[in-house]
Amino acid sequence: MATRIAVTGAAGRMGKILIEAAVKSESAELTAAIVRPGSSLVGVDAGELAGVGKVGVKVTDSLADVVDQFDAIIDFTSPAATLANAALCADHGKAMVIGTTGFSDDEKAELLAFQAKIPLCLAANFSTGVNLCFKLLETAARVMAAESDIEIVEAHHRHKVDSPSGTALRLGEVIAETTGRDLKKVAVYGREGISAERDRDTIGFATVRGGDVVGEHTVMFLADGERVEITHKASSRLAFGHGAVRAASWLLTKNCGLFDMQDVLDLK
Amino acid sequence: MATRIAVTGAAGRMGKILIEAAVKSESAELTAAIVRPGSSLVGVDAGELAGVGKVGVKVTDSLADVVDQFDAIIDFTSPAATLANAALCADHGKAMVIGTTGFSDDEKAELLAFQAKIPLCLAANFSTGVNLCFKLLETAARVMAAESDIEIVEAHHRHKVDSPSGTALRLGEVIAETTGRDLKKVAVYGREGISAERDRDTIGFATVRGGDVVGEHTVMFLADGERVEITHKASSRLAFGHGAVRAASWLLTKNCGLFDMQDVLDLK
Amino acid sequence: MATRIAVTGAAGRMGKILIEAAVKSESAELTAAIVRPGSSLVGVDAGELAGVGKVGVKVTDSLADVVDQFDAIIDFTSPAATLANAALCADHGKAMVIGTTGFSDDEKAELLAFQAKIPLCLAANFSTGVNLCFKLLETAARVMAAESDIEIVEAHHRHKVDSPSGTALRLGEVIAETTGRDLKKVAVYGREGISAERDRDTIGFATVRGGDVVGEHTVMFLADGERVEITHKASSRLAFGHGAVRAASWLLTKNCGLFDMQDVLDLK
Amino acid sequence: MATRIAVTGAAGRMGKILIEAAVKSESAELTAAIVRPGSSLVGVDAGELAGVGKVGVKVTDSLADVVDQFDAIIDFTSPAATLANAALCADHGKAMVIGTTGFSDDEKAELLAFQAKIPLCLAANFSTGVNLCFKLLETAARVMAAESDIEIVEAHHRHKVDSPSGTALRLGEVIAETTGRDLKKVAVYGREGISAERDRDTIGFATVRGGDVVGEHTVMFLADGERVEITHKASSRLAFGHGAVRAASWLLTKNCGLFDMQDVLDLK
Repeated sequence: MATRIAVTGAAGRMGKILIEAAVKSESAELTAAIVRPGSSLVGVDAGELAGVGKVGVKVTDSLADVVDQFDAIIDFTSPAATLANAALCADHGKAMVIGTTGFSDDEKAELLAFQAKIPLCLAANFSTGVNLCFKLLETAARVMAAESDIEIVEAHHRHKVDSPSGTALRLGEVIAETTGRDLKKVAVYGREGISAERDRDTIGFATVRGGDVVGEHTVMFLADGERVEITHKASSRLAFGHGAVRAASWLLTKNCGLFDMQDVLDLK
Repeated sequence: MATRIAVTGAAGRMGKILIEAAVKSESAELTAAIVRPGSSLVGVDAGELAGVGKVGVKVTDSLADVVDQFDAIIDFTSPAATLANAALCADHGKAMVIGTTGFSDDEKAELLAFQAKIPLCLAANFSTGVNLCFKLLETAARVMAAESDIEIVEAHHRHKVDSPSGTALRLGEVIAETTGRDLKKVAVYGREGISAERDRDTIGFATVRGGDVVGEHTVMFLADGERVEITHKASSRLAFGHGAVRAASWLLTKNCGLFDMQDVLDLK
Repeated sequence: MATRIAVTGAAGRMGKILIEAAVKSESAELTAAIVRPGSSLVGVDAGELAGVGKVGVKVTDSLADVVDQFDAIIDFTSPAATLANAALCADHGKAMVIGTTGFSDDEKAELLAFQAKIPLCLAANFSTGVNLCFKLLETAARVMAAESDIEIVEAHHRHKVDSPSGTALRLGEVIAETTGRDLKKVAVYGREGISAERDRDTIGFATVRGGDVVGEHTVMFLADGERVEITHKASSRLAFGHGAVRAASWLLTKNCGLFDMQDVLDLK
Repeated sequence: MATRIAVTGAAGRMGKILIEAAVKSESAELTAAIVRPGSSLVGVDAGELAGVGKVGVKVTDSLADVVDQFDAIIDFTSPAATLANAALCADHGKAMVIGTTGFSDDEKAELLAFQAKIPLCLAANFSTGVNLCFKLLETAARVMAAESDIEIVEAHHRHKVDSPSGTALRLGEVIAETTGRDLKKVAVYGREGISAERDRDTIGFATVRGGDVVGEHTVMFLADGERVEITHKASSRLAFGHGAVRAASWLLTKNCGLFDMQDVLDLK
């Protein structure tokens, strides 16, 4: 049976993407969409709001009113809203996929306590492909690191101001953790002029910025006679939406507990 | 302590590469090099023969004469030669890495019987990178196949007459096995004209032939919003040599038994 | 001074993209947006319609009413509408960029006659990058074709039903024309099984279909010892919009005549 | 009729590659191979020396002895040797392709004076593909620079100590010259931490070092909605040999004068 999904923050950019992902899913269906109390969007069709056509679900500003209409909620809102939603879900035994960021330590503790009653999925990145790549990278680093040079090339749009990307740094950390290196010591962020021959233990980062590139990451293992590359290319934020919906369906197999995307994808 | 390696067929193209790989290895050293009986190369320095400089190992035409000088033999010769070498190795407790092809069923059975006495490593492809990619692909297919389209693009030099490459077909089989498909039914080897929309269960093969490309394979998982690619690029046959030397060192941790590169790389 | 642009078909998907491109342009500005007579969108702000925020231009259903408010019109509508618009533009000396398709021979003749009075730009593809690649390819084929193997790899989303893409075929034609070959005779659309060694005169097409790939084309010149690749990747239809706006500004340097994107980009 | 080629410095690494390129050429043939006076290789077959099989040309240590047996000489030796060879060629009307480096200003002047009598081709890089890419880049920069961000990504083997590569810097200079920028001011050699949004006038260099990569260069033009990439990949030094042989054949169409690879390839 299709997982019945509620999306909070339905008026925001990520909310609309979550609605689209739920509507397009073969294993889930959108059954509730919630906005801030008093929003002028109450009563609008959630599909039309997200630009995917009428779906017959009216936007509401009260999660309590629709709590019987969904199995799992996907919540990418604010700490305060997420905590309130979590309390209600805990009372009614609803699973929660949480993409909200910015929790204080106290808020985080309060949130995690709900895992005793309901299944929670938290992740820094809900993309299936990115999470898969972390795992592939771990396997590859274990097999190749001793005999190869590792370089990470990433590209993002011209407006991105942090370099390398958070995902590129996380890829570097996975390699460092797997191979017992300290990323702070082995990371090389650019090369100019004459240097010594490459030290095998370093991890090079090459950063491309330009145009409207959504996000591309390649990790290269360059050995003598061969090369292995693991590449992720994002084309839209929909990838995060699909991963969150996948997590929602997967959570229904659990009674309670705390999970992340590596659990959802069975990559542990 | 460095694994002491003997290379048979030292006068052939693969033999020279195996010598080079053993000489360049940090965990192994070349200690014997064997050619066919009566070869005019007997007495020549094995390193000079392979074009890597003098190494102080004289080529011999008798494996028996040097049987005390190595721990493991790497044998990419002919079925008859390999079986004779295996009998000698079994008597003296020497590990064997075998890249010889073309065994009859009887010969294969005779060879495999030696696993009772010594450790054997047999593989269709000794490249570390290719074997790693088989494993990465299995993980990726398990996670991504249901929500993505899978396409394999490969490129080889202009002289290659079989398409797709054996490695590309093996990549396709790994995907098919992991996802419960029948490669014969789902493989698509070219597209021309108007067709129906892509069927998610198909596996597309795109083949590039030209120039002196040694061998490139990319498997793409194309989903909605993102893409994961696993790529292997060979730049020389040295990759096979390095893998074989790695296998030789690994075999010394075993007393006897039959192994392949997935065992050597701890990918099972 | 910024070119004042009118966009017809403002309610359609391409119309909205043209509005966005005009609004984002540094050398042009949107000053008129026209929809079908009687549309309920009359009076709406054109920027809001296109999702790029208020721009202060109200949508109208009468080109005649706003004919003093623009220098050039960009028209991606229907043959009948375009012909009517062209008659008006010819009377008022307005430049026209035309992306409309589906003209009959008579309609085409009628349209082209207006080049005596006003400057017209017609093109099959308004992307700057694609038109540039046609030129790069011509240069590359002239220099490399005799000593290299040429292969074209393209990728598009899973819904595309024609293979290879029209652009890939056009790339093949440019190579064939430059090198005096007949594309019908030298095109190879897939490889399977055992074949003869690659014939240098052939042009190979490899087609990837999957996910949401907007459109990627790579032409490879594979020689002995080196390889040159020319790649175009589309990330959105905005590329067509930008090219059309660029054409509109360029047309103002002409009094009359018929032009295409190769003229606009000074690639002839 | 096939161009008759003499190769000097036949015993060196580049000399052997030039022999191989001449032997493999369809439009040229190797007819003389010269080594240093007194070399023990005199009398050896030049093809066997280069590892491409017997070709029936015996190595000599006297260019004067074989001066009637070739039309053009390819000389990648030392300034002194090249000047002596040039004097002899000038007396006998032989064309010269010169890859020698390290001339003093006086030596350079002396060499160039021979252009009054014979045709000379000098180049910093004889690869057809690299020279083609300089031209493609010029065209692309002219069309795309105003509307795109330009980034250069290059990869070389782990032993390379200068970054970016000389070729990458030359690619940057071609862009800077074409677009009226000063490379010193606009080059960005690495990105780390938080920066301002990308300045369109900058040219980014991303450098990958690892394994045995012979040399790869990609120039990206990243625009809104599309991307154009020009890529060169070297797989062996043979590319330089092929270009030099091509230059030798081309020089025979000239009586005298000074030329470079852009002339040979008709790219000016």
